[in-house]
Amino acid sequence: MNYTQLVNLIKQRKSFLCVGLDPDPKLVEVDKILDFNKKIIDLTRDYTVAYKPNIAFYEHLGPIGWSILDETRKYIGEDHFTIADAKRGDIGNTSHYYAKTFFSTYNFDAITLSPYMGEDSIKPFLDFKDKWSIILSITSNGGSLDFQVPNLYKTVLEKSKSWGTKDNTMWVVGATRGELIKEVRKIVPNHFLLVPGIGAQGGSLDEVCRWGLNNDCGLLVNVSRSILLSDNPKLETSKIQIEMQKWLEAFTII
Amino acid sequence: MNYTQLVNLIKQRKSFLCVGLDPDPKLVEVDKILDFNKKIIDLTRDYTVAYKPNIAFYEHLGPIGWSILDETRKYIGEDHFTIADAKRGDIGNTSHYYAKTFFSTYNFDAITLSPYMGEDSIKPFLDFKDKWSIILSITSNGGSLDFQVPNLYKTVLEKSKSWGTKDNTMWVVGATRGELIKEVRKIVPNHFLLVPGIGAQGGSLDEVCRWGLNNDCGLLVNVSRSILLSDNPKLETSKIQIEMQKWLEAFTII
Repeated sequence: MNYTQLVNLIKQRKSFLCVGLDPDPKLVEVDKILDFNKKIIDLTRDYTVAYKPNIAFYEHLGPIGWSILDETRKYIGEDHFTIADAKRGDIGNTSHYYAKTFFSTYNFDAITLSPYMGEDSIKPFLDFKDKWSIILSITSNGGSLDFQVPNLYKTVLEKSKSWGTKDNTMWVVGATRGELIKEVRKIVPNHFLLVPGIGAQGGSLDEVCRWGLNNDCGLLVNVSRSILLSDNPKLETSKIQIEMQKWLEAFTII
Repeated sequence: MNYTQLVNLIKQRKSFLCVGLDPDPKLVEVDKILDFNKKIIDLTRDYTVAYKPNIAFYEHLGPIGWSILDETRKYIGEDHFTIADAKRGDIGNTSHYYAKTFFSTYNFDAITLSPYMGEDSIKPFLDFKDKWSIILSITSNGGSLDFQVPNLYKTVLEKSKSWGTKDNTMWVVGATRGELIKEVRKIVPNHFLLVPGIGAQGGSLDEVCRWGLNNDCGLLVNVSRSILLSDNPKLETSKIQIEMQKWLEAFTII
């Protein structure tokens, strides 16, 4: 999916919601994961633009986990933006095969990447046409304070924005650091950001929108647990969509 | 495998060589990877203490790749230290499942990790008894100049050395930055280091040993391409082992 298609999808669906498909074994038994994912997709697909399976929850199951991931990806179809939340990154030749895994073998639109190893660890992902690299800048966990702030997250943005374009690069910016989204937008005003940390992790959608929205929306906001754990995932998702629609209208994006 | 067992293995085998099992499709056809790995293991096991499959080269094949990885791990057996070169790292609950993948599902002794997300992304790996976290400090690729030097690699060492102990933590220090190993040893004199970049990538074994060896050896030096691409992997490996033995004797470790 390219930039224009993504923006059009957001306008059409009046939403910039990404749903995390994280089948924690505490939440669902192994042999029921695929049915669980399908149910969540069916209940939420009208209100969302993206799905983001967290690869750890598939990988630990061995080969069957990868089959479930594959079936889940196929079930999502082509009307949503798909993100493999894999946090990969390695020397060039290795990164090429990680890119091949998620962009070709499993046909995802995007993958999350760790920037620690620098430009040549990210470039092989950018070589795939109409595929996206979503590079960690500020994450939503407590450990983000160890190395990312106060400076590294900015250095990552400043350097990596020259590696690709707004057609193939996004960054992860955690909503739990809402005040930092303003700083991020000073460096990358026109790119998309993937924002986790809303809901169970305590981030505020309003703060994210106020500082993060741009003329083309420029945000994908991820929610996982508060939808997956909800008694009524459809209602929960539609509520978030309504909030998002208000923000899109306020910014005259739709 | 615990610290004492690893040191004893090094003394017994008079080697601190780790062989990278990186079945690049340019090197070997998919249906011959397992046989290729078994051949390399058979030819090199007397001269090595560790094997390190690079997970990207298995993952891109889909479920069959994970079966090959599993068979390869089992074929190595229990007389070598095994490293999953996976460069993982995510928020705590996710990291727990990555740890489970490589420590339980596939029974590796160690995994390589990216430190970008900080302490709570590494801690879940340290909770597994007699298993090892090998954290990126200075990598052997050109992109290591983007963020790691001049300061971040030191900050990573200084912070992360308090997260675990020398019984469960190592760092990746690329041999292509031989002069930096001296700096690394000022911060972590007693821990093991995993050193890639010897051979095809241009690093010098002598420089690594001069600055990197400690009283318990403290080094695992990885070689991949110059062994895998050799016409005579056994001869190539035994030559490296002989060089290593000289260094172990010079430091009166054996």
